[in-house]
Amino acid sequence: MRVGRAQAAVESAGLDALYVTAPANVMYLTGREAGRVLLTKNRGFLWVRELYRGVYADLYGLKGYPLEVRTYSRDELSKQVESLGCRSIGIEDVSVSYCNRMRKSFGCRLKPTEIVEQQRAVKSGHEIRALRRSASIAVKGMKKAYEVVRKGVRELDAAAEIEYEIRMGGSETPPFQHGMLLSSGPRAADVHAHATGARIGDGLVIADLGARFQGYYSDMTRTIAAGRLRKTERELMESVRRLEVEAVDYIKPGMTGAEVHDFIESRIKAAGFSFHHSAGHGIGLEVHERPKLGPESDDVLAEGMVFTVEPGIYIPKKMGVRFEDMVLLTKKGCRQLTG
Amino acid sequence: MRVGRAQAAVESAGLDALYVTAPANVMYLTGREAGRVLLTKNRGFLWVRELYRGVYADLYGLKGYPLEVRTYSRDELSKQVESLGCRSIGIEDVSVSYCNRMRKSFGCRLKPTEIVEQQRAVKSGHEIRALRRSASIAVKGMKKAYEVVRKGVRELDAAAEIEYEIRMGGSETPPFQHGMLLSSGPRAADVHAHATGARIGDGLVIADLGARFQGYYSDMTRTIAAGRLRKTERELMESVRRLEVEAVDYIKPGMTGAEVHDFIESRIKAAGFSFHHSAGHGIGLEVHERPKLGPESDDVLAEGMVFTVEPGIYIPKKMGVRFEDMVLLTKKGCRQLTG
Repeated sequence: MRVGRAQAAVESAGLDALYVTAPANVMYLTGREAGRVLLTKNRGFLWVRELYRGVYADLYGLKGYPLEVRTYSRDELSKQVESLGCRSIGIEDVSVSYCNRMRKSFGCRLKPTEIVEQQRAVKSGHEIRALRRSASIAVKGMKKAYEVVRKGVRELDAAAEIEYEIRMGGSETPPFQHGMLLSSGPRAADVHAHATGARIGDGLVIADLGARFQGYYSDMTRTIAAGRLRKTERELMESVRRLEVEAVDYIKPGMTGAEVHDFIESRIKAAGFSFHHSAGHGIGLEVHERPKLGPESDDVLAEGMVFTVEPGIYIPKKMGVRFEDMVLLTKKGCRQLTG
Repeated sequence: MRVGRAQAAVESAGLDALYVTAPANVMYLTGREAGRVLLTKNRGFLWVRELYRGVYADLYGLKGYPLEVRTYSRDELSKQVESLGCRSIGIEDVSVSYCNRMRKSFGCRLKPTEIVEQQRAVKSGHEIRALRRSASIAVKGMKKAYEVVRKGVRELDAAAEIEYEIRMGGSETPPFQHGMLLSSGPRAADVHAHATGARIGDGLVIADLGARFQGYYSDMTRTIAAGRLRKTERELMESVRRLEVEAVDYIKPGMTGAEVHDFIESRIKAAGFSFHHSAGHGIGLEVHERPKLGPESDDVLAEGMVFTVEPGIYIPKKMGVRFEDMVLLTKKGCRQLTG
C-alpha cells in the first residue's frame, strides 16, 4: 500500500521514477533498513547490497512482496534504469558527490523530491501503536530521571542510569545519536548540552530523552528541580510548563507549523525572552521528520500526524527550562503520547 | 595551528576561501561543536548561531583565539563573503539543497574540497592521548561484555549492561549512533545487526562497541563464545582472530588503504568466503573518517594516523565472526590502542 501510494505520487509528479536511498525511507517502503528502492508508476525494485544478500534471502521472489528484489551493482542498476526508459528520476536530498555519481550512472535528469518524506508524515494505526510503545519506554526513562537527578550526583552517572532503564525497557537504541541530553545549572542554557562529569547542584536540570520501538522513535523533555530552587527558577519552570500545556491545547488540524511556532514564540517574547529553536518536530522513523514546526514552516498539520511540542527559555550562563511532549493530532486536537 | 594549516591549504588549492559547516570539522578548527567557519588565506571567522551566542560569549574578542567571532545571520555572512571579494569557495560534501542555498547566498563558485578532513587524518599528541582514553573506556566495556554475554541472556539486556559500563566509565556518548552492535547465532551474519529481545543460545556472539572522550571516538569488536561451540564455529573464530593479528602486523606507513583491504580480502577468499565490508576505517572526531581502508582507497597510510582493522566472515543464516582493533600507525608499524 505504501509502495502503491508512492508510485501514484511518482506519476502525478510527472516523474519516470523515484530512487530511494535514505534508510528511513527505505525502511518505510520495504520493512528493511538496508537497500535502495527504485519505483516507476507500475513497477518497484529493491536493490539489496551484496553484504545483505544472504540475510535478506527470504525476500527474493517472496509472494505478495510488493517489490522485485535484486542484488545491487552499479552496472545492473544503470542497465535497469536504461531499460525502463527513464528520463527524469526523483531523488532525495543526498550529498552533492552522491548526486553527481548518480547523474553519471543513470544518465538522466535528477529532480529533488520529498515524496516518501511527505507520505511518512501521516501515521497509520500500526505506526501509532509503535509510537505509543516507544513513548511509553521514554516515560519509564523519565520516571527514572526524576529518581536519580538530584543534587550531588554526577550528570554522566545519572544519564547512565536513565539510559540503562530505557534499554532494559526494550528500546532498540539508546536515546538519540549522542545519548540523552542532561544538563544542570548554567549548562542547561546550552540547548544541546550533553551530560558531563560535573555534579548536579541546586537548580534546574533539563532531561531530554527518548527510545526506539520497531523502528519508531520517541522524544520528551522535562525540567527537574534539584536541591533548592530560587524563586526565579521556580517561576520560569512553571511558566514554560504552562506554555507547553497551552500550546498543546491550541493546536488543531489545518494550522501550519509556523502558526504553532508563532503561538509559542509570541508568548516567550511577551515574557521578555527570545526563542531560538523550533516549536517542535514530526517524529517517526526519524527523530526529526515532517511536519516541521519552525518559524517558516508551511507544513499543514493534519489528523494522524505525530509531533513534539517543546517551548524553552534559556538564560545564558544562568539556567535553562524546556518541556516537551509527543502528541498525536486527531480531529479534535492533540492527544498526548508521552505520559 | 590547525587554522593556520587549513589556511595554507586554502591558498595552495587556489581557493579564495573555505566554508566549513560539518560539526566534526568545526570542532577540529574551533574546539566547539556549533558554528560555521569561514577561512581565507589570512583571515578566519567563526559564525555562532544566535542560539549559542550566550553560551559562547567568552569567545567574542578572546585574546589569542585564532578566529574572529561573529553572530550568524545569512545576510551578514553574505555581506562578508562579498566584502572579502571571494570568487571561489571550497565547501564540504553537503546536501544538494544546502549547496544550492549557499550558491545563491554567496553568489560565487563553490568547489568541493576535503581540506579539513585530510588534515584530521594525522593525529597530534593531544589527539592520540584522547583516543587512548577513549579506547580504554571501550576496553572496559568489552571486559563487561565477556562477563555478561552468555547463553540464556537477552541480547538487549546484555547490551544495556555493557552500555551502562561504558557510560559510567566516562564516555560522553553511548556507543555509536544506534548503540552497540550485539548479535548472536545466525543473526551475527547480519553485519549491522543490533541487539534484539532474543535470548543468546549456543554459538558465537559479535560485540562491536566504542566510547567517546573529549570528542574522540573509539571502536572495537570481539566475537564471544556463548554456551557450547561447534567445531566449525571455533575454527572460524580462531582463523579470523589470526587474520586480524596478521593484518595489524602487516601494515606499514606508505601502504594504501586498498593494499590493506586486499591483504585481508585475499586471505578470506582463499578460505572460501567473501569479504563485503571495508578492512577498517580512520577514527577520531568521527567514528568513520579518513583514511579509508576499502577496496578502492588510494589514501596513503602515514605515521600518526589512527584507524581500525576489522576482518570478518559471515555465513548467512548460520553465523558471523569479526575482530576489530584500533591502532596508531608509527614508523615501525601499528601500535594497538584497544587492549
